[in-house]
Amino acid sequence: MRNYLYKIKENTFFKGSVIVIILLSALLLGTSTYELNSKAQNALIFLDYFITIFFCLEISIRFAAEKNKKEFFKEGWNIFDTTIVIFSLVPAGESVLLLRLLRIFRVLRLISFIPELRDLIEALLKSLSRLGYVCLLLFIILYIYAVFGSMAFSDIDPERWRDLGMALITLVQVLTLSSWEQVMLPIQEEIAWSWVYFFSFIALGAITVLNLIIAVLVNVMTEMKSDESKSKEA
Amino acid sequence: MRNYLYKIKENTFFKGSVIVIILLSALLLGTSTYELNSKAQNALIFLDYFITIFFCLEISIRFAAEKNKKEFFKEGWNIFDTTIVIFSLVPAGESVLLLRLLRIFRVLRLISFIPELRDLIEALLKSLSRLGYVCLLLFIILYIYAVFGSMAFSDIDPERWRDLGMALITLVQVLTLSSWEQVMLPIQEEIAWSWVYFFSFIALGAITVLNLIIAVLVNVMTEMKSDESKSKEA
Amino acid sequence: MRNYLYKIKENTFFKGSVIVIILLSALLLGTSTYELNSKAQNALIFLDYFITIFFCLEISIRFAAEKNKKEFFKEGWNIFDTTIVIFSLVPAGESVLLLRLLRIFRVLRLISFIPELRDLIEALLKSLSRLGYVCLLLFIILYIYAVFGSMAFSDIDPERWRDLGMALITLVQVLTLSSWEQVMLPIQEEIAWSWVYFFSFIALGAITVLNLIIAVLVNVMTEMKSDESKSKEA
Amino acid sequence: MRNYLYKIKENTFFKGSVIVIILLSALLLGTSTYELNSKAQNALIFLDYFITIFFCLEISIRFAAEKNKKEFFKEGWNIFDTTIVIFSLVPAGESVLLLRLLRIFRVLRLISFIPELRDLIEALLKSLSRLGYVCLLLFIILYIYAVFGSMAFSDIDPERWRDLGMALITLVQVLTLSSWEQVMLPIQEEIAWSWVYFFSFIALGAITVLNLIIAVLVNVMTEMKSDESKSKEA
Repeated sequence: MRNYLYKIKENTFFKGSVIVIILLSALLLGTSTYELNSKAQNALIFLDYFITIFFCLEISIRFAAEKNKKEFFKEGWNIFDTTIVIFSLVPAGESVLLLRLLRIFRVLRLISFIPELRDLIEALLKSLSRLGYVCLLLFIILYIYAVFGSMAFSDIDPERWRDLGMALITLVQVLTLSSWEQVMLPIQEEIAWSWVYFFSFIALGAITVLNLIIAVLVNVMTEMKSDESKSKEA
Repeated sequence: MRNYLYKIKENTFFKGSVIVIILLSALLLGTSTYELNSKAQNALIFLDYFITIFFCLEISIRFAAEKNKKEFFKEGWNIFDTTIVIFSLVPAGESVLLLRLLRIFRVLRLISFIPELRDLIEALLKSLSRLGYVCLLLFIILYIYAVFGSMAFSDIDPERWRDLGMALITLVQVLTLSSWEQVMLPIQEEIAWSWVYFFSFIALGAITVLNLIIAVLVNVMTEMKSDESKSKEA
Repeated sequence: MRNYLYKIKENTFFKGSVIVIILLSALLLGTSTYELNSKAQNALIFLDYFITIFFCLEISIRFAAEKNKKEFFKEGWNIFDTTIVIFSLVPAGESVLLLRLLRIFRVLRLISFIPELRDLIEALLKSLSRLGYVCLLLFIILYIYAVFGSMAFSDIDPERWRDLGMALITLVQVLTLSSWEQVMLPIQEEIAWSWVYFFSFIALGAITVLNLIIAVLVNVMTEMKSDESKSKEA
Repeated sequence: MRNYLYKIKENTFFKGSVIVIILLSALLLGTSTYELNSKAQNALIFLDYFITIFFCLEISIRFAAEKNKKEFFKEGWNIFDTTIVIFSLVPAGESVLLLRLLRIFRVLRLISFIPELRDLIEALLKSLSRLGYVCLLLFIILYIYAVFGSMAFSDIDPERWRDLGMALITLVQVLTLSSWEQVMLPIQEEIAWSWVYFFSFIALGAITVLNLIIAVLVNVMTEMKSDESKSKEA
């Protein structure tokens, strides 16, 4: 029995049909954002039931096909898939919005199903963990400038510098260089030295972000080199 | 006869005059976007006939000069050139706009005629094909956020989040960091946590795009190294 | 006695509590940007006293634990910490704003306390010093364009090109590509060649900034290589 | 006599005073963009005379100190300096604006006087010449999209797509991602597929610019390697 299920699980047709169903569920989600007549809506609800059942079956098959049941939950991606499928079973009686939001995560199963995407995400997560301190530095800079800004500018432009939270949002905008001059100019009219605040923030932010990028790049290149030297030894 | 045509084809003067004619056809296209008196318009139409005939002749010479006619259509750039020239022959009786649009592609012949540009495009295409999965990941992120956005924000800012299509367009704008705060602020006023949505999207998008850039860079460097080791062996 | 203080200084619990207090002072700063009732304000003032005293004690312990008192002031980070703590002791009778601003710098102590952040900042400063000439070049380009702009455009758009100072601010905006077309379009209407000014400025600026980035990158890579060759020799 | 002049030319004090005078002339230029009373203006005019005479003397000394007069004009930077100084001698009777503009170029002498900046500029020019084809490709893409845009969109948004020239300016704005959605949205309302035009343009432009950056980077790294292998051989 388990062998039979394992063969199903490894079957190319089965794998392909899972991907098709994931794509279908993504399409269904997209369609539901358009205004539809009641007939189409009923079809969507029916399709949604079908997809939910299919996903339950698929996870069950994969779980049953596993020799050692404990091993199944040791791999992160299996837990990831199971959680998403279980969330889909939340009864529809509750808030429709919440229900639909939970459906969105089903699209993420595409990542867990295509090995190349899985590798990509794993590489991303690994490199991210090493960037912790640069991100911390960026946040310290943001925090100090936000506190300063909300203290010094809150009377001039309350909408943007009202309190720390709003100042942080405003400074993220400045950091991304998106129409930041519209943030500076009203303050520049009142406080002549305010350009020092903005220019120094942009310079510091740019340097830190640049360091972040270089850190990622160096990470990648170091890994390339170690792969190379390994392949030379082999 | 074929030898004679081959000599013409390889003649530097012939090659130069083709480039001149391509540039002329580009200039002619540009001029036609300005308002002109009827005299100048007639001159343009006459010039256009001349260029069309010249291009037909040039392709015919190159085809006739080829030893093995099958080989001619095996090279992508020949097919590219021939298609563009044939499209130019579409009768002018139809929509003038369409006719002019087809003329635009003649400028692309500059790429197929300058070997350095050809190499550049080929290198670009080769590196692009390897970026497929990063682009797929970017699209998955865009799609999930667009579905979520059009579900949660469509009542607050219908112009930007009306349906999936509009939400995707809006999110591409946010991804390029172009005045994205104008997208966020109206929603931030209603939903206090909306900054989480936007900041996480920008962070995820930036990380994925950064990975895309690094993937290109690593590709280029790996090729450089393999070229190097080849030249060492030789 | 000194040994006892040294043990305190090196104690993990002591170190941890310093970090907690720094974070607390950061939080306190953030909270004070929101409107609070008088009760909460009193609590904040009390907390502020507590933090100030704690920091004085902590610096005293670190100073007393040092064998050679001269050595203490030879390390930049110790001077950095001491200065920040001394500034906190400025009597509250003066301008409240100034007092609060001085409190902000206490957050910077987080950098001096976490070794990884310290290394990061030191690496940043080292790489910055080598970038001096590229920054100088960028400033020369900015200066020349600003003088030219304020001479030629001050009558057309006085708000942006009034004098050298304003023109410099405007050009920094253009350099960051933030809504720069809103700077160009009013001038383009009057002066037909103004696009040459803006495009050349953007191109020159982009090339110089790109060089700056590459200079940082090459710095980092050269250091990586020298580290590698050192580790090979060892 | 020539030896004596050569000693002056190589004198550190002389070199320093030239840099000071260049900086002074830059400051003078900056000051003249502010509104001044007649007294200050007279002082500026006097200073300007002094600087002009000083520069003439300095160039004369450098020319006289040269052994082989032909050699002097063989080095680009000498010609550069001489041209700038000669332009300063244009009689003040003509347009004041033109006169002042010519003064701006005197700031550029700072580049020719500081060897590190000179090296930087020479390295920039060398790397730029190799980027020709990528720039050509970028221009071809811009041109094709501009012709297409001015044909298809000129009726919907004449201010931005009136003719080829205006369309090119608009597309440079889109290429720099500066508020490009304000260009797309009015057209998107009329033509449903216009997002294809804009997204493809941004994608193509980004890929080409990315290639340009990588080309610069690879250039720099190849030079680093060849320098390395040379130093190994030595």
